[in-house]
Amino acid sequence: MIDGAILIGAELRQAETRFTSVDPATGETLKPNVSSAGPADVADACALAAAAAPAYAATDPETRAAFLERIADAIAAIGDPLIARAMQETGLPRARLEGERGRTVGQLRLFAQVVRQGDWLDATIDPALPDRQPLPRPDLRRLNLPVGPVAVFGASNFPLAFSVAGGDTASALAAGCPVVVKGHPAHPGTGELVARAVRDAVAAAGLPAGVFSYLPGETNALGEALVADPRIKAVGFTGSRGGGLALMRIAAGREEPIPVYAEMSSINPVILFPAALAARGEALAPAFVQSLTMGAGQFCTNPGLVLGVASPELDRFVEAAGKALSESQPATMLSPGIHASFEKGVDALAGHNAVTQVARGQVGEGVNQAVGALFVTDASAFLADRALGHEVFGSSSIVIRCRDLAEIGTVIASLEGQLTATIQIDDADADAVRGLLPILAERVGRILANGWPTGVEVSHAMVHGGPFPATSDGRTTSVGTAAIYRFLRPVCFQNIPEGLLPEAISDANPWSIARRVDGKREASTR
Amino acid sequence: MIDGAILIGAELRQAETRFTSVDPATGETLKPNVSSAGPADVADACALAAAAAPAYAATDPETRAAFLERIADAIAAIGDPLIARAMQETGLPRARLEGERGRTVGQLRLFAQVVRQGDWLDATIDPALPDRQPLPRPDLRRLNLPVGPVAVFGASNFPLAFSVAGGDTASALAAGCPVVVKGHPAHPGTGELVARAVRDAVAAAGLPAGVFSYLPGETNALGEALVADPRIKAVGFTGSRGGGLALMRIAAGREEPIPVYAEMSSINPVILFPAALAARGEALAPAFVQSLTMGAGQFCTNPGLVLGVASPELDRFVEAAGKALSESQPATMLSPGIHASFEKGVDALAGHNAVTQVARGQVGEGVNQAVGALFVTDASAFLADRALGHEVFGSSSIVIRCRDLAEIGTVIASLEGQLTATIQIDDADADAVRGLLPILAERVGRILANGWPTGVEVSHAMVHGGPFPATSDGRTTSVGTAAIYRFLRPVCFQNIPEGLLPEAISDANPWSIARRVDGKREASTR
Repeated sequence: MIDGAILIGAELRQAETRFTSVDPATGETLKPNVSSAGPADVADACALAAAAAPAYAATDPETRAAFLERIADAIAAIGDPLIARAMQETGLPRARLEGERGRTVGQLRLFAQVVRQGDWLDATIDPALPDRQPLPRPDLRRLNLPVGPVAVFGASNFPLAFSVAGGDTASALAAGCPVVVKGHPAHPGTGELVARAVRDAVAAAGLPAGVFSYLPGETNALGEALVADPRIKAVGFTGSRGGGLALMRIAAGREEPIPVYAEMSSINPVILFPAALAARGEALAPAFVQSLTMGAGQFCTNPGLVLGVASPELDRFVEAAGKALSESQPATMLSPGIHASFEKGVDALAGHNAVTQVARGQVGEGVNQAVGALFVTDASAFLADRALGHEVFGSSSIVIRCRDLAEIGTVIASLEGQLTATIQIDDADADAVRGLLPILAERVGRILANGWPTGVEVSHAMVHGGPFPATSDGRTTSVGTAAIYRFLRPVCFQNIPEGLLPEAISDANPWSIARRVDGKREASTR
Repeated sequence: MIDGAILIGAELRQAETRFTSVDPATGETLKPNVSSAGPADVADACALAAAAAPAYAATDPETRAAFLERIADAIAAIGDPLIARAMQETGLPRARLEGERGRTVGQLRLFAQVVRQGDWLDATIDPALPDRQPLPRPDLRRLNLPVGPVAVFGASNFPLAFSVAGGDTASALAAGCPVVVKGHPAHPGTGELVARAVRDAVAAAGLPAGVFSYLPGETNALGEALVADPRIKAVGFTGSRGGGLALMRIAAGREEPIPVYAEMSSINPVILFPAALAARGEALAPAFVQSLTMGAGQFCTNPGLVLGVASPELDRFVEAAGKALSESQPATMLSPGIHASFEKGVDALAGHNAVTQVARGQVGEGVNQAVGALFVTDASAFLADRALGHEVFGSSSIVIRCRDLAEIGTVIASLEGQLTATIQIDDADADAVRGLLPILAERVGRILANGWPTGVEVSHAMVHGGPFPATSDGRTTSVGTAAIYRFLRPVCFQNIPEGLLPEAISDANPWSIARRVDGKREASTR
C-alpha cells in the first residue's frame, strides 16, 4: 500500500502540497504523488515522540528486542513489492536490493541480540565503602539511558539499509529512543512501504505510537525544522557534505545544542605499496575497477583516490585499470540530480590542466547513466589544488603518481578525514607500511589490507566513521553494533534504595547482564 | 620555583606582556607578575603537541601509566609550598587544599590503573568467516585511539583537581593525547608549580617534550586562539556558561569542528519528599546549609534550588535552614570577579518582587567575603521567570514552594540540564519518587538520595556531567574513569597481517587485555 501518506505515529495524513519521484532509468514520473510534510507535521511528530520517550525508554530488553525483530519480520513480509518499488525508484538492480534488504533485516535482528545482551548499558557499580578514611564512599551506580527522540535522515544510496528502517533508525530504537524519519524524496514509495511496516510493528508490540513517525518531503525546510525542534535530542544523517554541514549549523545554533551524526564525504584512498604493485599490479587493476564501478560508484566507501610510487609498475596498473574501465558497462544512477553532479565532477577533472584522463567506461542507452572515469596526475599537482581531493560521488577515481613513499605520506597527511584507507601490500612492504600506518590511522575510521573498501560488514568491530568531514563526529560509527552508543548518555545513581534503582544496576540484576563492579568486569550470570 | 614562565614543552619563556594575581583575602597583588602567552606561544605549543602526538599515542600502557604516576609523585613532592601558594591565590583553607591535592594525585594514579587494565581500548575482534554465504566475512578488529592534542582550560574553583594537572589533563594524557593547558589567571603561581612538575615528569619518562605545555594568560583571546588552532582536536573546560558557549562557537566554526567538553552551569535541585520532610525536615536544614556554604558555595554541585510541597513541614525546614544560615560564617571567595558576580546575583534575588529573603549569613571582616543567602518563592513565580533558574555561583539558594508533587514535576520539567538532583526520601515516599525519577533522569547526570550534591567521588561509576547547559556534551563525564572516553575514537583494522596490527588487537595480545571476540567478552589473561 503506497498512497503518499505522512505517518504521525499511527495516524496517516495526506497533505495538499505534493511531490513526485522519477524512475531514473527512464525519467518517467512515478505514481502516486506524495505528501510534503509541513511544520505542523514536524511539530506533531516530535510532540508524539517526546510523549512516547519515557515509556519506550523504560521497556525491558526483551520487549525492545522483540520489537526490533517484529520490524525485521514486517519488512521481510512486504515481499517482492518492496524490491520492485525500490528498483523503480533507484535504478538499482534486483540482486543488490535483495542483498540490501537482507542487510536491513539482519541489522535489526543483530541489534535485538545486542539489546538483550546488555553491554550497551555499561552497567557499573562502585559499592559503598562506609569505613573509608578520611571520608566514606557512597554507593555509586551508573548506566546508559537513551538521549530522547532522534531525527533520522534517509540516504538515497541505500534505500533500505540506510533509510527509513536502516542503521540509524535501528540503533536509535535499540538505544530506547523514539525516531522521527525525514524520508528521502528520491524513494518515497519504498520509504512509505517500510514506514508502514514499522508502524505495524509498533502497534503489534503495544508500544506508544509516537515511537516512530515518518515525514516525506523534498524541501530543505522540512529537515531544518525537524533538527530545530527542541524535542529532538540527536540527529542521524547520511548524505552530502553541504546537507550535513547545514544540519550541524542548525543543531549547534539551537538553544540546546544537540549531537549530529552526519556521514558526509570520503574519497577512500587506496595505497599501492611497491612490492604488491610489482608482484600483482596488473591483477589488482580489474578488481579495483570492479570496486570503483559497483553500484555505479554510489558508495560512501567508493575508491576515489589511488596512490603509488611513479614507476613502470604503476604505469602498468594504470594501463590495465584503464583497459578494464573502458570495457565497463554504464549503470543507472540514483537520481537525475546525482547524475548531474557526477557529470559536473567528471567534467571538471577532465578539463583540469594538470590531470590526464586515462579512460572512460562504455557509453550506453538511456538517461542518468554513470560512465566510469579514471584520471591520473602527479602528487605536486594534487597537493597544489585542494579541489582535486573533493568527492565526486559516482564511479570516478584519480591515480596520484608520487615520487616516493615519503611523498605518499605527504599526500595522505594533506587529506581531510576519510571513512577508509586501503593498503595493497606484500610481505616485503611491511616496513613501509609501518611508517605510514600511524598517519593513516589519524585520518580514517577503517584501514583494510588487500581488499577493496566497498562492502561494509555489519558487526561488532566495524567502524563506518572517521574524522571530519568523513563524518561530523569521528568518535562514532554509523554501521555496526557500536552505533548504539551514539544515542545513549550516562546517568549515575548515588545511594538510591534497591527498590527504586533501574533494573540494570539493581542488586537483583533481573536481566542478568554483565556489569563492572569496583572496576572489575563481572561475567553475565546467564 | 615560580617566575611567571610560559612552558612550551621543555622550554621556559618569559613574555613582555605580564599580568598579576591577587590574594582574594586581602586584595593585595601577588608576586611575581606573570607572562601573558601570545599567539606565537599558542602556535608553538600546538606544533610541539602535534609533533609529539604519534610517539605518545604509541606508548604502551605500562609506559603511559608510569608517566601518570610520575606526575602524581612530582606534584606530591612540591610539598607545602604548593599548598601555601594555592591558599594565597584562592583564599581556600589549608584542609580543603590538602584534600584537593590528595584527589589530584589520586586521580592521576587511578587513571594509571585504568590505562594498565585496558578496557578503555574497547578491543573488539570479529574473526574472519571465510566460508560464510553469500559472502565471506573479513577479519575485523577495532580499538580506540587517542584523538590528538587536547586543550585544557584550568578552572578557578579547583586550583589543583580541575586545573593544570586535574581531571581533564589526567584523562587526556591517559587516553594518549598531548595536552596544552591554558592556565587560569586567578592562580598562576599554583599553576606554574604544577606545570613544572608535569614538565619534569615528561622529561624523566623520556617522552617528547610536546606532550605537555602550559600557557598562562588573562585574555579571552588566548583561549580563543588555542581552540581555533587546527592542531587541537578536543577541548576540556570547566567554568562559566558564557565562557563555555564562546569556546563551543569557536570549535563549531572551525574548518574542522572539534568536540568541546565544557562543564558550565548547574543549580542542582534538591527535592524534599513529603515523608522525609515530615520525619526529619528540621534535621535536614543544618546539613543543607553546610553543603550550601561549604567552600563559600563555589562548587559546580552547590545546591542552589530546593523544592518541596507547601506545608507547615516545609515552613519549618525553611525556618531552620534560615536559622542555620544566619549563624554561618563568611568565607573568602576565589577572586574579586567571582565575588562581584555573587553579590550581583544575590542582590537581584533580594530585589525580585516575587522572592522573599529568608536569611543571610554572618557578615565578616575583609574583602571578597561570601555571605550566604537563602530565598523562598512559589512555583508559579519560579515558572514565570526563567532568570530565577540561573546559577548564582556561591552560597545562594532558593526554596520553591509547590502546590503538590505534580507541581514539583512541572518545575523539574521546566529546568535546564543539571549536573545533579538530590532527593530526600523515606520509605513512604517510594511511589512519589517512582513518578518523578524518569523526569529527573532526563535532566541530570547524577541522582543522589539522602545526601548532598557537593562532594564528587572520583571512581568508575561517577557521572559529573549532564544535559546542556550543565555541560556542552551530556554523553560524557568530566570526573571519574569514564572521562577517558572523551578523548578517544575508534579505528577498525580489516585483514591487517598480525605483524602490522596494533598490539591491543593482535593475536599475541602482549598486554593481556580483556577483549570482545565475536560479540562475547573474553576475560583478561592476567
